[in-house]
Amino acid sequence: MAPRGKSRSDAQESESVDPAAGLLPAGLRDVLAPRAEWEAQASEKLLAGFARHGYVRVKPPLIEFEETLLAGSGVALAGQMFRVMDPVSQRMMGLRNDVTLQVARIAATRLRDAVRPLRMAYAGQVLRVRGSQLRPERQFAQAGFELIGSDALAADVETGVLAAEAVAALGVPGLSLDITQPQLAPTITEAHGLDPKAARAARRALDRKDAAELKAVGGAAAPTLLKLLELAGPARRALDGLKALKLPDAAAKIVADLDALVREVSAAAPDLLVTLDPGEFRGFEYHTGIAFSLFARNVRGELGRGGRYTTPAGEPATGFTLYLDSVMRALPAQPVPPMVYLPHGTPRSTGAELRRQGHATWAALNPEAGDLKKAAKAAGCSHVWDGTAVRPV
Amino acid sequence: MAPRGKSRSDAQESESVDPAAGLLPAGLRDVLAPRAEWEAQASEKLLAGFARHGYVRVKPPLIEFEETLLAGSGVALAGQMFRVMDPVSQRMMGLRNDVTLQVARIAATRLRDAVRPLRMAYAGQVLRVRGSQLRPERQFAQAGFELIGSDALAADVETGVLAAEAVAALGVPGLSLDITQPQLAPTITEAHGLDPKAARAARRALDRKDAAELKAVGGAAAPTLLKLLELAGPARRALDGLKALKLPDAAAKIVADLDALVREVSAAAPDLLVTLDPGEFRGFEYHTGIAFSLFARNVRGELGRGGRYTTPAGEPATGFTLYLDSVMRALPAQPVPPMVYLPHGTPRSTGAELRRQGHATWAALNPEAGDLKKAAKAAGCSHVWDGTAVRPV
Repeated sequence: MAPRGKSRSDAQESESVDPAAGLLPAGLRDVLAPRAEWEAQASEKLLAGFARHGYVRVKPPLIEFEETLLAGSGVALAGQMFRVMDPVSQRMMGLRNDVTLQVARIAATRLRDAVRPLRMAYAGQVLRVRGSQLRPERQFAQAGFELIGSDALAADVETGVLAAEAVAALGVPGLSLDITQPQLAPTITEAHGLDPKAARAARRALDRKDAAELKAVGGAAAPTLLKLLELAGPARRALDGLKALKLPDAAAKIVADLDALVREVSAAAPDLLVTLDPGEFRGFEYHTGIAFSLFARNVRGELGRGGRYTTPAGEPATGFTLYLDSVMRALPAQPVPPMVYLPHGTPRSTGAELRRQGHATWAALNPEAGDLKKAAKAAGCSHVWDGTAVRPV
Repeated sequence: MAPRGKSRSDAQESESVDPAAGLLPAGLRDVLAPRAEWEAQASEKLLAGFARHGYVRVKPPLIEFEETLLAGSGVALAGQMFRVMDPVSQRMMGLRNDVTLQVARIAATRLRDAVRPLRMAYAGQVLRVRGSQLRPERQFAQAGFELIGSDALAADVETGVLAAEAVAALGVPGLSLDITQPQLAPTITEAHGLDPKAARAARRALDRKDAAELKAVGGAAAPTLLKLLELAGPARRALDGLKALKLPDAAAKIVADLDALVREVSAAAPDLLVTLDPGEFRGFEYHTGIAFSLFARNVRGELGRGGRYTTPAGEPATGFTLYLDSVMRALPAQPVPPMVYLPHGTPRSTGAELRRQGHATWAALNPEAGDLKKAAKAAGCSHVWDGTAVRPV
């Protein structure tokens, strides 16, 4: 396959190296036109897609008491949270670095008596203390949805399919959904009676995808665990391989669920490439069961992650978070919207009429020194009003 | 005039008293459905209105170096800023409590070589350390636009008219635009030769709208300053009164500009009530010239403020910021969008077809215990799919 051409948003990004470097803290930046508009529109379109599946928008605050943000599963994110003192309560507050757990908190408190499942969506900014090498950014725009109060496999199917469908609707080509189930490997080491130390060593080897080490430390579980490593790839092939293994009952149940999940996801989204990584056992941060990463062909980093977690009230939940920076990188070139230059002295009523016709206008506030078309171009306009008609520049 | 009925958003607000009070810090709250959706849609519609007048969206970060946020005019906002230490640079950063000055910074740095005027718009959250009695909130959603690099009166006209027009387009009735010019009173005290101490005393009296005190301390300027107090009200009447006064030249020039401004604003927005407060001299925070407040009849607090300021590069600028919380209070009742309940077991293709037809759907994940309509209602749906058609519940 030919490599995809440099997309408009990639170009945009490399252009946006700050000429006033050092002005902003590392990992924080100004998003300029037209990218800021594209990003906002992509976010709103994602939320509209979630709404069509019954997900209603909520908006938790940017800061909360630290202990609330870190309650339960949130502790996994503690190291990445900016903290500020609240002069009103004299208590520590944190800037959120995740919205999922805020939505889970809403479900567990304000909406504890509402009928289940709850379907909620959100869009907003999150901050983290340090960037990583792959993702130096420290402020992220996210858009996501949470499905709370159901442990049905149908909830997992809905989550994976909706995330992929909403991103595909933006025009992102070549999507793939990678599925993991962090309980699979531990279930196997436990069933084979590995002691905690041996299980830890086996997990470490799995993590490094180190087959030789896995053979050495995996004991009775080694042959099966090696198969998990080998089978990572297209989900259908992986599942056929897993089903051919002699698995302990608990592991066989997990594989049967994964099999049903993949069948349903593929039926609902036939164009989606579905992959499975059966040896992955860490989950992402707070995830506890079936988990997803969404990728686009030739785009660095995941477009989003999702999966099973438990709310502070102990309810089963699943959901998906999309990272707008990655989604923007995956989007094909966007057209810059047209704009009509109104020369100085154009009657107000003319501008109003052009806007009524659907044009965006840019009114000159000073008399033009020279050529109108040149002035229009310099102002970033695609068209000019010449007194009788709208003409391209 | 009969008092306006309780609007949907007022009702929404009083409903939203947190049943888990104390869970969130004072002045911070969860915005739930459907209000979060209405707010997001209002914000996007405002930005679309700004875009039709050539304002392109930018998105500065939520946090910046403290010294950058406080540069120049920003120092007026210093007391209201949360601060965090940046572990990367070991320098203090601030959470923005205003976006206008961030946009002005962009104009002065990254866009310093772009053609003027610059038209930029933004939407986002701001935070402040303490709420006030009138506005206990500490996180605000704002939407605004900035017009940078022109000192033309046409820029002031555009700013006032666009803010009012964009809010009116949301469906807010009974708008009024209040104009102030903080240089008018000081120009008069200076022209009448008041010494700094007397001028200060006169300003204090004006500020308290204390006519007796003003008479006592105003010296030669007192008769004119008293007139300024008296003339606050409908702009046409105020300007006729001001023009009838024998004003010092500099003050007469300011009044002539205000007169031209009001004429043009009224011509462009004939339904807008325009008022003038000629005695107001403080400006809002960093504003230095013609300034605006937008109000809606019977709605507490301004919907937004705007006006003249100077960028860090010394450029003349004007702009307007709308406060989404006030705008939401001013909006008439919004319809809750319809949603179709899909009973458990509804084929996936049926849901997909209904969504293609424009319906939002809500899929049951478990078999219903009893009546379908009851289950649909409990789930917050307005309609139900009965196997052959969509029916209201």
